[in-house]
Amino acid sequence: MLTLQYRKRFHYKLGGIQLSQTFNVEWSWIKDFVTKVFVAYGIPEDDAAICTDVLLASDKKGIESHGVNRFKPIYLDRLRDGIQSPVTNFEIIRETATTAVVDGHDGMGQVIGTKAMQMAIDKAKEFGMGMVAVRNSTHYGIAGYYTDMAAKAGCIGMTGTNARPSIAPTFGVENMLGTNPLTLGFPTDEEFPFNLDCATSISQRGKIEYFARVGQDTPEGMVIGRDGSAMTDSPAILEALVNGEAALAPLGGIGEELAGYKGYGFATFVEVLSAALQQGNFLRMLSGISETGEKQKFHLGHFFIAIDTEAFVGLESFKKTAGDILRELRASELAPGEERIYTAGEKEFLIWQERKETGLPLNEGVQKELIAIRDDLGWTEKLPFE
Amino acid sequence: MLTLQYRKRFHYKLGGIQLSQTFNVEWSWIKDFVTKVFVAYGIPEDDAAICTDVLLASDKKGIESHGVNRFKPIYLDRLRDGIQSPVTNFEIIRETATTAVVDGHDGMGQVIGTKAMQMAIDKAKEFGMGMVAVRNSTHYGIAGYYTDMAAKAGCIGMTGTNARPSIAPTFGVENMLGTNPLTLGFPTDEEFPFNLDCATSISQRGKIEYFARVGQDTPEGMVIGRDGSAMTDSPAILEALVNGEAALAPLGGIGEELAGYKGYGFATFVEVLSAALQQGNFLRMLSGISETGEKQKFHLGHFFIAIDTEAFVGLESFKKTAGDILRELRASELAPGEERIYTAGEKEFLIWQERKETGLPLNEGVQKELIAIRDDLGWTEKLPFE
Repeated sequence: MLTLQYRKRFHYKLGGIQLSQTFNVEWSWIKDFVTKVFVAYGIPEDDAAICTDVLLASDKKGIESHGVNRFKPIYLDRLRDGIQSPVTNFEIIRETATTAVVDGHDGMGQVIGTKAMQMAIDKAKEFGMGMVAVRNSTHYGIAGYYTDMAAKAGCIGMTGTNARPSIAPTFGVENMLGTNPLTLGFPTDEEFPFNLDCATSISQRGKIEYFARVGQDTPEGMVIGRDGSAMTDSPAILEALVNGEAALAPLGGIGEELAGYKGYGFATFVEVLSAALQQGNFLRMLSGISETGEKQKFHLGHFFIAIDTEAFVGLESFKKTAGDILRELRASELAPGEERIYTAGEKEFLIWQERKETGLPLNEGVQKELIAIRDDLGWTEKLPFE
Repeated sequence: MLTLQYRKRFHYKLGGIQLSQTFNVEWSWIKDFVTKVFVAYGIPEDDAAICTDVLLASDKKGIESHGVNRFKPIYLDRLRDGIQSPVTNFEIIRETATTAVVDGHDGMGQVIGTKAMQMAIDKAKEFGMGMVAVRNSTHYGIAGYYTDMAAKAGCIGMTGTNARPSIAPTFGVENMLGTNPLTLGFPTDEEFPFNLDCATSISQRGKIEYFARVGQDTPEGMVIGRDGSAMTDSPAILEALVNGEAALAPLGGIGEELAGYKGYGFATFVEVLSAALQQGNFLRMLSGISETGEKQKFHLGHFFIAIDTEAFVGLESFKKTAGDILRELRASELAPGEERIYTAGEKEFLIWQERKETGLPLNEGVQKELIAIRDDLGWTEKLPFE
């Protein structure tokens, strides 16, 4: 299946390029459909509403790679394969005034994530700071959802998660670390919060799938082959990533020349905070494949940090200064040929301004998947794009 | 003055290349000398001991760019110019169980930083987490000193600081953000803590000074010119950085191709946390030059976060898992032609293993500076390299 991660970042440059025929559905329709399906897969109604909200938050921001595109392969298929549970047992293993360790028992990552960040926020509201470490979780959707929760509550938010091994360490060639986002957010006096939601690799598989589809080489430095060279042949990379013959380079690239050790260091920090505080799994344990080649539970780990701005000089003062900084950055001198300077979260906000009117564009692959999901459930309702 | 930042990262590759004749002094001698000079500049004895410890911690790790190399230009000259105060008034503006806002009144950044991180650690030890935001501070030395403090106390440590504008935003060309380190550390079961102490730009001025001296071009992508192009002529870059005709690129490089918006986002996060929690200065306000062209107080801001691992599954368990992750990374498959895979803080530890025996190598420029400092103070003692 094609992921459209590229649209997030290249949206304004590529303009109207479409990867396939798309059909725009109304937000209310997709919300109802996805929720109904989640419920049909055994997820309790309240939890299903959360899972849908996290999933569509991604589409609303234009991050299709983590939205309805993933509904079937990442969530429904894993539920069907029995490697994650529709009913979420959110067990608090240990708790102090500001901290908690939670076992998610392989339930829905979005439910675990939402409850865990809410705990961190509640602790921050009472004690100034809060942090929750989670083990035995599953894919929790876009990390930025949780920092947005914190920002809405007037808090600085931080979150990270480990993931299937895909980044090679600096001077190494083996896919060891997950794309491990180090996700940061805070409130501002503008219409949208600061939200830096990014993998600690330069890129992700989705962008290389895009390059392959449009016949472009992958820029040098994004991917390292087993022989240590920078791979650029996009179709070859996609195959090599699957069989372990290639790995993603950390932010900063291959080797040390452009400071790849920094991205590698950030990825390592996220890996450790996602496992060592909670006695969770890490690195190769997170492959999702057992020694005998079968699919197995991922047992992912996450962490969630909330810091209440009210505990410092106050929310309004914080928001004003934060906004002033962001506005001053955007108003600084533009590079010739560029249209504008953005701050983190702004592009996603602009996409939502457009999409809330136009609805959600679904590409043909996703349309077919939704039809197959309906058929599989034995439902007869006609979908809008049929 | 020549900074030797390159030695930290290129140490093992460049081996024996020396930029100038060096002379190794004993640690006890340099410690006594630096402390005596700080005291002669009006710093109280206890504070002078802290300033020396932070300064030499950098040399011990092989980060000469932040060590004795900076003794005169960054600390003594600024004291003499009256833009920072030898006596540090560490004023707590506001305090809660887990948080504090501190005004440093332009005292010694190392003293402010050490006290602030100690406060964060003390709060974490009592309540699980602690965070201190500081305003009106001065250059606080290597950020990694403070995360090392946290790690020694069994805590995850995070710190950041704003600085003189030098990084251009993605799609911009103007030096707006400081090199804003996002510095992360934690304890492990090994002989040294994890310590990722890095600017959110690809590089710093010091490395370009090195390229200029050895006649090398600066790798494409590190520096952006006012016309938006990647500058590579090292001597031209050094001049352009001074007059604002060039800016450093964020980690990830110029534009979005290799995800420069991520480094830009991290730098922005550090800028905001270094100002908005404490009503401090930011961006262009931090130039150190007044509108009439005179040197002025920097009024820097920092933040310090400590998270007690004991509040989660316990220190020993944390250290073991963290160590296991780092060892597994180092033992993963090596790129052909590379010698080994490191983890953050390891190179610095290895340099200290060597240097604690051999003493501190001082290049000719620093030797001359130390002689001039002695003469200036009217002292007559002979220095070891005279």
